[in-house]
Amino acid sequence: MMPMSDEAWMARALRLAERGRYTTMPNPRVGCVLVKDGALVGEGFHMRSGEAHAEIHALAEAGDKTGGATAYVTLEPCSHQGRTGPCCEALIQAGVARVVVAMQDPNPLVAGRGIERMRAAGIQVDVGILEEDAWALNAGFLLRMVQGRPRIRLKMAMSLDGRTAMPSGESQWITGPEARRDVQRLRAESCAILTGVDSIIFDNARLTVRPEQLGEIEGVSVEAIAARQPLRVILDSTLRMPLAAACLVEPGRTLVVTVAGIQSARWAKLEQAGAEILELPAGEDGRVDLAALLSWLAEHEQCNDVLVETGATLAGAMMDAGLVDELRLYLAPTLLGSEARPLLNLGLERMDQQRPLDILDIRAFGKDWRILARPVR
Amino acid sequence: MMPMSDEAWMARALRLAERGRYTTMPNPRVGCVLVKDGALVGEGFHMRSGEAHAEIHALAEAGDKTGGATAYVTLEPCSHQGRTGPCCEALIQAGVARVVVAMQDPNPLVAGRGIERMRAAGIQVDVGILEEDAWALNAGFLLRMVQGRPRIRLKMAMSLDGRTAMPSGESQWITGPEARRDVQRLRAESCAILTGVDSIIFDNARLTVRPEQLGEIEGVSVEAIAARQPLRVILDSTLRMPLAAACLVEPGRTLVVTVAGIQSARWAKLEQAGAEILELPAGEDGRVDLAALLSWLAEHEQCNDVLVETGATLAGAMMDAGLVDELRLYLAPTLLGSEARPLLNLGLERMDQQRPLDILDIRAFGKDWRILARPVR
Repeated sequence: MMPMSDEAWMARALRLAERGRYTTMPNPRVGCVLVKDGALVGEGFHMRSGEAHAEIHALAEAGDKTGGATAYVTLEPCSHQGRTGPCCEALIQAGVARVVVAMQDPNPLVAGRGIERMRAAGIQVDVGILEEDAWALNAGFLLRMVQGRPRIRLKMAMSLDGRTAMPSGESQWITGPEARRDVQRLRAESCAILTGVDSIIFDNARLTVRPEQLGEIEGVSVEAIAARQPLRVILDSTLRMPLAAACLVEPGRTLVVTVAGIQSARWAKLEQAGAEILELPAGEDGRVDLAALLSWLAEHEQCNDVLVETGATLAGAMMDAGLVDELRLYLAPTLLGSEARPLLNLGLERMDQQRPLDILDIRAFGKDWRILARPVR
Repeated sequence: MMPMSDEAWMARALRLAERGRYTTMPNPRVGCVLVKDGALVGEGFHMRSGEAHAEIHALAEAGDKTGGATAYVTLEPCSHQGRTGPCCEALIQAGVARVVVAMQDPNPLVAGRGIERMRAAGIQVDVGILEEDAWALNAGFLLRMVQGRPRIRLKMAMSLDGRTAMPSGESQWITGPEARRDVQRLRAESCAILTGVDSIIFDNARLTVRPEQLGEIEGVSVEAIAARQPLRVILDSTLRMPLAAACLVEPGRTLVVTVAGIQSARWAKLEQAGAEILELPAGEDGRVDLAALLSWLAEHEQCNDVLVETGATLAGAMMDAGLVDELRLYLAPTLLGSEARPLLNLGLERMDQQRPLDILDIRAFGKDWRILARPVR
């Protein structure tokens, strides 16, 4: 039998890391595989913040077979004393001979130091195997580390003619159960869900992860996933949030974001009803400054991935501000007509103002289709 | 070696028939394979109206090996004396023992009579092998035979937010070369291209097949394809057709369709400029009755497939009248914004008026994507 390549072992480590997709946040998803004499001797992945890192699981499984082994890790092992000890020390102590790292960790607390320490201890360290896949696995976390803001994914459901609701605002969930399940999973892998207060006022959106709608997910129970509800973030510049909003009594937290200095008798009542209220500076339009909000969510809530589920106005404003990293459009097989509500409020006048996109993927979900696209920067 | 199944031989006959895709109209595309003792002895396809049918080519190729052979034909062999002799007689004369027919020909001149005559002559005839594929190959021809109207395919290019041009009407071909090539092929397989006079006035559309844009097509020269230009049909209820329209001097015919009884000094000038003019009754809205036009095109021009390339108004009217059989949307990776022109003028007000579609296929053409959809009837 041919010995397995570095890429094949790293692919296995990446698949392990995948199993933390819905639970590691705010930490990154990481997998580790230990190989000795061409054979697997231990493997593990990071499951949840505060619990052991992938490397520690893999070393424990390998027991006394770690000496001279090669470790494949999807992200540079940490060098700092967090809630768990530094993983690079554990690998050194275990006598590992070689460490293959998919990518360096841009986290300023690590940033190459883990690699340096292992090299200083005489370990051969190779960096950059399946780096692109490793990056994709933690795109939100990495964006937060590098730019100090979460990754923003904008999800919308539209008809084939690009419409989301009838002219009156009448709407219904136009997509089917497969698309809805995909949205539930998208929520479950997000740290926060962002919407405007109108979605609460008009649709009484709950913005929750419902375990019974997640379908079966390999290696994790859906109840464990739904035990963590994404932070609900409601943009509400004039504090119109209804006290009876359904989301206020759901498990998890609801953060109502308003402009600094607002005076409202409803403030105390909203807090009593279960909301947390955050004041942020207003942007030029008098509404909450969106870029400031995203920085705040990265810094204070350690949000890696924020899912925006909203109407054409806020969605258009996010696009206009250049804050959308990915569009996730669910295309329903129907026409709603030229009077129906548009996808994004974007008042472009000339062809040279058009917003080019890269379409990354289109695939069927039941009778609907999902389009993944990214604004060309 | 396993003997080939009826389905496998019929699939070969269907692939042969495909080679007539751009040239047989108004005739159907037909392929024929002759098999004796499990081996291919002759095959052929229909290339062009007035030339030999598929069966005749196959029999000629088989020479003296036709006695006792099995013939696979994608459409019931004709029983009438057209420009060529009836094929079922030729098969009988050649001593063929068995004929496998993908589907009965609904052409009233045939309609089971070919099958009957062969059976009466002692040939075993089996009908209904790969019938669905055989139907798809000639959907336009079959619709004309069954319903007396052509198949209508509506082609549009739109942005990801369902828009076709800027609010001013400013537009440019938003899709890339691969999508354009596909549109050229779609034109080449259509009997006529239908548009509104505004497309001529504002875009000076030529509506021609350009051989250099067809790309390579197996088994046929692009020059042979472009030698037949689809009939250009311009809806023009008030005779506004510009005398200097580019399409009037292109190879092929241009038919300007106006409402009966219109008086215009431009009539004679238009004819002089190269147009043919057709008067048809007006519909309720005072414009040319669309259903009447389609019947006329089926009856007088033997149009199997009509391609509609037009703006939101005519496209919406065609949808509203239930005359669209297939939507072919080219999706460009861009956003044109909420002020841009809609895909279809359809003034729907309530969700229960929405127009459900079946999305049949979505695939990439370069950076664009093509969506095939069919209105749910």
